Amino acid sequence: MAHEETKPIRFGILGCAEIARKVSRAITLSPNSTLYAIGSRSLEKATKYAASNNFPSHTKIYGSYDAVLDDPDVDAVYVPLPTSLHLHWAVLAAQKKKHLLLEKPVALNVGELDKILEACESNGLQYMDATMWMHHPRTEKMFQFISDPNLFGSLQSVHATFSYPTSPYFLANDIRVKPDLDSLGTLGDTGWYCIRAILWAANYELPKTAKALHKPKYNEAGVLLSCEASLTWEDNKVATFFCSFLADMSMDITAIGAKGSLRVHDYVIPNEENEALFRTSSNSYFLELSAGWNPKPSEVVVKNDIPQEALMVKEFAHLVGGIKYGNSKVENKWAIISRKTQVVIDAVKASIDNGLQPVPIEY
Amino acid sequence: MAHEETKPIRFGILGCAEIARKVSRAITLSPNSTLYAIGSRSLEKATKYAASNNFPSHTKIYGSYDAVLDDPDVDAVYVPLPTSLHLHWAVLAAQKKKHLLLEKPVALNVGELDKILEACESNGLQYMDATMWMHHPRTEKMFQFISDPNLFGSLQSVHATFSYPTSPYFLANDIRVKPDLDSLGTLGDTGWYCIRAILWAANYELPKTAKALHKPKYNEAGVLLSCEASLTWEDNKVATFFCSFLADMSMDITAIGAKGSLRVHDYVIPNEENEALFRTSSNSYFLELSAGWNPKPSEVVVKNDIPQEALMVKEFAHLVGGIKYGNSKVENKWAIISRKTQVVIDAVKASIDNGLQPVPIEY
Repeated sequence: MAHEETKPIRFGILGCAEIARKVSRAITLSPNSTLYAIGSRSLEKATKYAASNNFPSHTKIYGSYDAVLDDPDVDAVYVPLPTSLHLHWAVLAAQKKKHLLLEKPVALNVGELDKILEACESNGLQYMDATMWMHHPRTEKMFQFISDPNLFGSLQSVHATFSYPTSPYFLANDIRVKPDLDSLGTLGDTGWYCIRAILWAANYELPKTAKALHKPKYNEAGVLLSCEASLTWEDNKVATFFCSFLADMSMDITAIGAKGSLRVHDYVIPNEENEALFRTSSNSYFLELSAGWNPKPSEVVVKNDIPQEALMVKEFAHLVGGIKYGNSKVENKWAIISRKTQVVIDAVKASIDNGLQPVPIEY
Repeated sequence: MAHEETKPIRFGILGCAEIARKVSRAITLSPNSTLYAIGSRSLEKATKYAASNNFPSHTKIYGSYDAVLDDPDVDAVYVPLPTSLHLHWAVLAAQKKKHLLLEKPVALNVGELDKILEACESNGLQYMDATMWMHHPRTEKMFQFISDPNLFGSLQSVHATFSYPTSPYFLANDIRVKPDLDSLGTLGDTGWYCIRAILWAANYELPKTAKALHKPKYNEAGVLLSCEASLTWEDNKVATFFCSFLADMSMDITAIGAKGSLRVHDYVIPNEENEALFRTSSNSYFLELSAGWNPKPSEVVVKNDIPQEALMVKEFAHLVGGIKYGNSKVENKWAIISRKTQVVIDAVKASIDNGLQPVPIEY
């Protein structure tokens, strides 16, 4: 494709979710996108939301989601609605020819996700799930490390966590624990990241089997608050993960290969916004008399010029721009890894529901 | 007990194991012990071993294990023999009134260990397994942290690893993978530490169930080379561990409580001999817009004046001295946690052997 002038991608946002405050800032920070419109079921709420979150003065404020989708100047929509509404609004957005940046959990199950992906594909639209850490430059650096046959070797074991503590009010009222809004609970919210991290560490090779490891905890409405599960492959590598609304904040990946290992403790949200670190060890062994390690583990710090969520928007807008202004095709990678993540979530959920029995994972 | 002058505890060592090079140095470094005797089936081998490992000139060199046990001036023996020989020699040592520092894995199964513990108990002798990291001052600092109801809270999930890479020669010839010498393979050698770490993190509350998570790897002789398993308690906390002879060197504990979390990556053998660090997080939460963590995790560095194995010897010799020169009773803690560790190993082994079925853990 010839290098040519393109206009910023114009984003519409559906709804006034808390997370959309972060992503609207990201749309503003990303150099190739603009915050073009927001719609809420209440015009007043959208107006207030735009004002209190420093939306650009040119942002159009609509009193419905439909109005955003019907605006012909909106190129792409970001959909942070409760998960149970994704199927309807994501499919409708695709029918209205809007490229789709979809908040996670992307759907209640893979059947729903397939309808969304099919709507995007048949309309030639870019799909991406809003998994921000995938776009941090640290993630690329870590991936280079674990892909190196001499420094890391074949993956043997990976453990991932994502947990954060919540209040009694959250556990009774937040949309993330409402059976009619986000019935996957912590598995959809924090488990999503753990499963994505495990797939990432396995170079997206889908495991064969999922098994929940203990009777999980639920809130009074029956929504999952805590879960630990294992995933296994035919070559005997194994993954475990812990996700919870009832534990201290944790975001760990501990990946151990035949020759090296990787550790990161803030993969979802880095401790700091403009740099992030990870630790590696390669071909280390005991010193004489096992008095220490040689070599010792290393620390790698990676700086980022804009926050990871702005890098996500930038990458998405780049793909959309390539389709809109160039000859690029849709990048299927994001749909594929989104679907793999959902397929594993569904299998873990099935294992929980069938009394911790192992469940085969089928793409 | 009145403060009184005591003599250093006189250690005898049975056999010329590689690990005994480290522990003999520790006996020399510890202020309350002396390397009094070593016995090998070959006098020549013992003589060479003592010379090449800088044994004190006064150390008695014997051409049999029996000679060490028959020396009335030996107070305590360190037994680093292959595991299949522990039952015979540990029980005999106790019958000869020697206090017992027993290398791990301590026995092939809990039935054997019970005979060893009974022999020590009925003869009024101190027992301790040689799990060095238990004696590092870092371990005590970490335990204070995870015991704090405000900084850590109740344990929710803990993951432990211990792995190191081995050569094809090791996998065919080392005693740790010989079915007639150390039939527990990596589960006894590295899994021992993972299980101890998990019990430690759970304040030694025994889990209810053990389950191996995948078909493990074996060498040609049928000895375990790699294993991952989960342990669960009735209150729904859950532990997982990975132990292997086929992976990069790893020694991780990731313990997540309701209010805080603990991370250490070299709990078995610290990266450096004279200091060690761990990382904590407590009551942390997302910054505005989830742009980072507040507070950020902390790093705690703990210095030690003598190596952890010398601190182990010092503690053991202190207990022995209290019995020999004072009015102290045997400290039962070490026998109890050793037995708990063995009981969990046995349950994991049973789960592997019965096709990954969950196995109840009974003390």
